[in-house]
Amino acid sequence: MPHAQASPAPSHHQPRKPCLSQPTLDVVAIGNAIVDVLARADDSFIAEHGLTKGGMQLIDTTTADELYSAMGPGVEISGGSAANTLAGLAAMGRSCGFIGQVAQDQLGKVFAHDIRALGIRFDTASRAGDPPTALCLIMVTPDGQRTMNTFLGASQFLPPAAIDADLIRSARILYLEGYLWDPEEPRAAMRSAIATAREAGREIAFTLSDAFVIERHRADFLKLIDEGLIDILFANETEILSLTQSTDCESAIAQVSAKVPTLVVTRSEKGAIAITGGTRHEVAAAPIAQVVDTTGAGDLFAAGFLAGYVAGKAPAQSLKMGAIAAAEIISHFGARPEADLKALLGDLL
Amino acid sequence: MPHAQASPAPSHHQPRKPCLSQPTLDVVAIGNAIVDVLARADDSFIAEHGLTKGGMQLIDTTTADELYSAMGPGVEISGGSAANTLAGLAAMGRSCGFIGQVAQDQLGKVFAHDIRALGIRFDTASRAGDPPTALCLIMVTPDGQRTMNTFLGASQFLPPAAIDADLIRSARILYLEGYLWDPEEPRAAMRSAIATAREAGREIAFTLSDAFVIERHRADFLKLIDEGLIDILFANETEILSLTQSTDCESAIAQVSAKVPTLVVTRSEKGAIAITGGTRHEVAAAPIAQVVDTTGAGDLFAAGFLAGYVAGKAPAQSLKMGAIAAAEIISHFGARPEADLKALLGDLL
Repeated sequence: MPHAQASPAPSHHQPRKPCLSQPTLDVVAIGNAIVDVLARADDSFIAEHGLTKGGMQLIDTTTADELYSAMGPGVEISGGSAANTLAGLAAMGRSCGFIGQVAQDQLGKVFAHDIRALGIRFDTASRAGDPPTALCLIMVTPDGQRTMNTFLGASQFLPPAAIDADLIRSARILYLEGYLWDPEEPRAAMRSAIATAREAGREIAFTLSDAFVIERHRADFLKLIDEGLIDILFANETEILSLTQSTDCESAIAQVSAKVPTLVVTRSEKGAIAITGGTRHEVAAAPIAQVVDTTGAGDLFAAGFLAGYVAGKAPAQSLKMGAIAAAEIISHFGARPEADLKALLGDLL
Repeated sequence: MPHAQASPAPSHHQPRKPCLSQPTLDVVAIGNAIVDVLARADDSFIAEHGLTKGGMQLIDTTTADELYSAMGPGVEISGGSAANTLAGLAAMGRSCGFIGQVAQDQLGKVFAHDIRALGIRFDTASRAGDPPTALCLIMVTPDGQRTMNTFLGASQFLPPAAIDADLIRSARILYLEGYLWDPEEPRAAMRSAIATAREAGREIAFTLSDAFVIERHRADFLKLIDEGLIDILFANETEILSLTQSTDCESAIAQVSAKVPTLVVTRSEKGAIAITGGTRHEVAAAPIAQVVDTTGAGDLFAAGFLAGYVAGKAPAQSLKMGAIAAAEIISHFGARPEADLKALLGDLL
């Protein structure tokens, strides 16, 4: 596999295999189809309910009911990590498709409406009967940090049959979220999508999503990387440490960047790093008046970076686009862009 | 009936009839139980879909589906005029109860959760089967103006049997929204609640809601006023003109204030007026950096005014509280308070 680490040309200009045909979409993503329920909560609420601040935990119906009863009034906004990334990409003018499982219920309708209203192709048939559409109960503490509690619902039943091979082949990049590695059926669906994308000579981008997800699936994730199936890997510092079971970020980055053509590591207020073609690029975090809600920060960073990447921008510029998109999303409630990202990016686009 | 217009003491200190027992709640409201779906839209969208900017129209399932398909990605936030007013009152520390009809579906659960999470008593049994919980599709134009399209759904089936007479008797003020006068069953329910409140010596507050609602029910509304069944009437300028079929605001105000102990007329950026006990009080609009979304402005003005009223504040102070609560709500998306209203009101409370 051509995972040359020190290629003089940026590897993102060189798809892993020759394309069988020109892609018609920029990015197709497979992800959890989730509606977020966001509410403000104090740190005492996080402690009382035994939640890990800043993390994501999977919850069952009983816990979902208990937490929902206890939490404050909410705001419902479509979410899902990869879907948020696509929302950002679409807002930046990129053409996208999404594959994810909703139920035939009101929140499923909300999710489908919102993603289609962004111009994103979304054809996955909704699923009849129980369980309902996935919900993420998100507590936003006064410091803007989000603590996520995901009831996977219908999302965990995305079947391999839902993977539209033509859609996968039609996109230059297949984007996958680590979160979806938890449930069995979607994991199988993603593996089949990876195979399809690779056969068609497409690139594969993967986000590690969450340290606890990595705890559960480290071997799988490392195998994907070792087999050269990941062209662009997104992680934050905690995740890259968890993946490598390291305590030193720089050595973790060196270790992983040796195996993926493009590694993007987000570092919250310290900005972000991309190692691509053996070269390191850095960007500072974009300035922001107030961190309102960090939900979706990583998702939108990925959106900005990928928007630059598919447009053939230099890695430093793609990083800058990621930083700007992330800054927009943390300046308000919810993980879908509110401001005009094209206007915010201006000449960078 | 003791509707003395020129009583030297403010009429709000004198319940219409002697109370049979001390109230245990401040305000109980009957209103549409609605979840708002808010999306940004250009003026061209309003024009293309033949909507009346700033107004509220009732829509059926077909129109709801068409409009929803056409509108941009939304944010779902509990709404309903009277329920928004209670949300404000609860945020200001007042004790409240709500009566309204949701369906046994996800959005009904959202509505019920949100209102209960505010500490508002809400015991109306949800309704099985179709139609679903009421939805209001709200287009917010760049000027912050909201155009509402209400699918009444289950809300229109609030039966008279849902009126908990003990709950009505337990509250010092019964608050009713004109919007709910449209559907037949809730209208009958409100009439029965009015009778119960009056027998218990409670005060009745009423908001005229919308000029088109008044067009449809002017005779009924005037009859309620003529019969002395309304102690506090809330209206904006358009509504007071519609009610009196007048073109002159001052004469409309004079005409109506002669018949209700307390008349509150909101005038958007020009502030608001209260005529109480024959005396006129005015307040300027509270300053605001940017009008983001006017949804709920009238509802929250009513909340602020009523919070002052039940606390025995002077009308000028109650008006000021209304202005501050309204300013908070128009500074963000959605009709439920986000900021700490108690902190905003400070010494006024």
